[in-house]
Amino acid sequence: MTNPIPAIDAAEVETMILTLGAIGAHSETGVWRTAFSDEWVAANALVKDWATAAGLTTRMDAAGNLWGRIEGRDGGKAIVSGSHIDSQCPGGRYDGALGVIAALVAIKTLVEAFGPPKRPLEMLSLCEEEGSRFPTAGFWGSRALVGRVSATDPDTVKEANGGTIGQAMQAVGLDPARLDEAKRDDIAAFVELHIEQGPVLEHADIPVAIVTGITAIRHTEVTLTGEQNHAGAFPMDLRRDPMAGFAEVTSRLIDHAYRMGRPAVTTVGRCHVSPNAPAIIPRSVTFTIDARHPIQDEATRMHAAHAAALTEIAERRGLGLETRVLFDHPGSPSDPALVAALEASAKRQGIPALHMASGAGHDAQQIARICPVAMVFVRSEGGRSHTPEEFSTIEDIVAGIQVLAGALYELAY
Amino acid sequence: MTNPIPAIDAAEVETMILTLGAIGAHSETGVWRTAFSDEWVAANALVKDWATAAGLTTRMDAAGNLWGRIEGRDGGKAIVSGSHIDSQCPGGRYDGALGVIAALVAIKTLVEAFGPPKRPLEMLSLCEEEGSRFPTAGFWGSRALVGRVSATDPDTVKEANGGTIGQAMQAVGLDPARLDEAKRDDIAAFVELHIEQGPVLEHADIPVAIVTGITAIRHTEVTLTGEQNHAGAFPMDLRRDPMAGFAEVTSRLIDHAYRMGRPAVTTVGRCHVSPNAPAIIPRSVTFTIDARHPIQDEATRMHAAHAAALTEIAERRGLGLETRVLFDHPGSPSDPALVAALEASAKRQGIPALHMASGAGHDAQQIARICPVAMVFVRSEGGRSHTPEEFSTIEDIVAGIQVLAGALYELAY
Repeated sequence: MTNPIPAIDAAEVETMILTLGAIGAHSETGVWRTAFSDEWVAANALVKDWATAAGLTTRMDAAGNLWGRIEGRDGGKAIVSGSHIDSQCPGGRYDGALGVIAALVAIKTLVEAFGPPKRPLEMLSLCEEEGSRFPTAGFWGSRALVGRVSATDPDTVKEANGGTIGQAMQAVGLDPARLDEAKRDDIAAFVELHIEQGPVLEHADIPVAIVTGITAIRHTEVTLTGEQNHAGAFPMDLRRDPMAGFAEVTSRLIDHAYRMGRPAVTTVGRCHVSPNAPAIIPRSVTFTIDARHPIQDEATRMHAAHAAALTEIAERRGLGLETRVLFDHPGSPSDPALVAALEASAKRQGIPALHMASGAGHDAQQIARICPVAMVFVRSEGGRSHTPEEFSTIEDIVAGIQVLAGALYELAY
Repeated sequence: MTNPIPAIDAAEVETMILTLGAIGAHSETGVWRTAFSDEWVAANALVKDWATAAGLTTRMDAAGNLWGRIEGRDGGKAIVSGSHIDSQCPGGRYDGALGVIAALVAIKTLVEAFGPPKRPLEMLSLCEEEGSRFPTAGFWGSRALVGRVSATDPDTVKEANGGTIGQAMQAVGLDPARLDEAKRDDIAAFVELHIEQGPVLEHADIPVAIVTGITAIRHTEVTLTGEQNHAGAFPMDLRRDPMAGFAEVTSRLIDHAYRMGRPAVTTVGRCHVSPNAPAIIPRSVTFTIDARHPIQDEATRMHAAHAAALTEIAERRGLGLETRVLFDHPGSPSDPALVAALEASAKRQGIPALHMASGAGHDAQQIARICPVAMVFVRSEGGRSHTPEEFSTIEDIVAGIQVLAGALYELAY
């Protein structure tokens, strides 16, 4: 196989990362860039300038997503790539922003080398993926795009200080009443490049991954209730201690995910003890279970094992058990044809690429509701993310963009 | 053996419990009576009236302890019985107060039946055992009695709103500068009657226990530190999860105490997770270990097992481990001669009495520094304590006072 994809300009990509990362810069290497903020406006203005210079026609849709488009000679539905431009508070320079830059650089490189594509090709800068300004608005831009925001959201979705997302939109010139216009039904494929946010590629010593699917994720809140008593006067054999039950459940669940093997994960990240005093056997322990698996059947099997363990342990220990599913997002498998296109692109260019599932959520899983999607992961140093310390080498980033560009070439040319 | 002890008047004791319990009454059956409060002043005034009517000479010492004394024909050191009159916020009618009433009723009954004793006999109403008004002043009265308060305490020991214990003392007419005068070195024996505060007597179906010793108690604060990461993107096999370590440690420690058997107890009652979010593998978990055993060697063996488990689990899981002993109170065995006197009293009167250790702390363990001590426990319904719901039947209470009176007769007559 020959490789038609020109070499990506590493120095240019590095400059773009640093220039974009300077907008909303926080601490040494971080970024604080929330949706509809001044920094968000400035970042999108910069991307718009870059896209215009690359020959793309830009527009911001009604939800706050910035698009850059080059028409295709044969018309038809568009091939789209991109990610989100908003950050955690603070996040790093790479989470989201790298996928916007990658899309722009890949399209620009292809257009410079091969001229206009056969099919329309678009770059996308998505809005409020993180939910870092409006906690209940995660995936705002990608949900608007697929019709999963409601007409009442602009007035009811609020930030911590109480302002609505509708007010924030109006402040940057967007009309919340037109939110519905952000919907698209003319996209043929969406490919998102993102940093891995985990250590799998680093441990495998491979720069890039082709994402086979995004995990199913369920959050469950559990309360175990026992009998509050004096820590000194109550013998062990007469206790109904919810902390003992909590410890056994937590060990059992974590151990179960470990034995299932990758990519199953289970996390107990939050726990509240009542009354939480050293000399009192607790009355109750409330905790969360975060359980994920990209294969829905496996996720279902894991949930059943969790429920069985909870019931068995609570019954044996004489504890009250209440469980409440906080949310349950189904898994989102990547499109096999797009995975094949990415794999072929990596092979043609001699770039080692792992196949792996994403344990984190991404805009691609929203967009999967209207078109085939797939993702490219770039190795994260130390697996770090959601911190100013997140880092990927320029070599790994360029490798990722090469893989992306090769697939976009196959899809659009 | 003949039984010289007259029958205790159950109706009178019940009336005394209800009358004293009405001072600071809270909810249906509770009491809220903190040291140096109006309720505390009124409660001691009532006890003083009762003691005076019984022929005792009363005085309040410099720390706030109320004494009622009848001189002995042969003089010498005093035989003392009593407990504390302050309560939890709220507590019940029995915790502390019952031991004051029991001492008064026992002495009154003996004096009425047999006249003045050979040795001086004293009733004692102790001050701020609970530390419910001044959190760092627990065992205030009994510590003052044995010289374990410092001259700076009146100015440095504070309640939640910032007032000092010295100011509270002055408000009830006590001179903090004279605190030192509360010390006693002329006590031959101290016997304290108290509710059990646990379910051991109830489960054994026995009304009364003779306390063989008060438990050694150590509070340790432990912090396990791992690596905070994304709950989705980090595989199980690469995690350093302090929650998993915490769960394993907690199970191991609780199981260890269970297998040691009564009276060993270990409680993990307080736990703080950081950052405590459902989708984040925690950075650290900080928790307390409350470990108790009345036999010092066994307590030491238990602490060693805890330390070994912590070290092994932290090392195997790659977690940072910090431990800090918050306090470490040695065990306080009862005096064998006093235990024998109580046992003989119970036997003579045909009252079934269990031997058991106290898992809770009591004034007696402070007073043990200056004289032999022992305790009598009265069965607690449901093992409940530190709640308005605590309850003991009048039959069990009278049985306890009979045992106490028999021992005081043997010691003082």
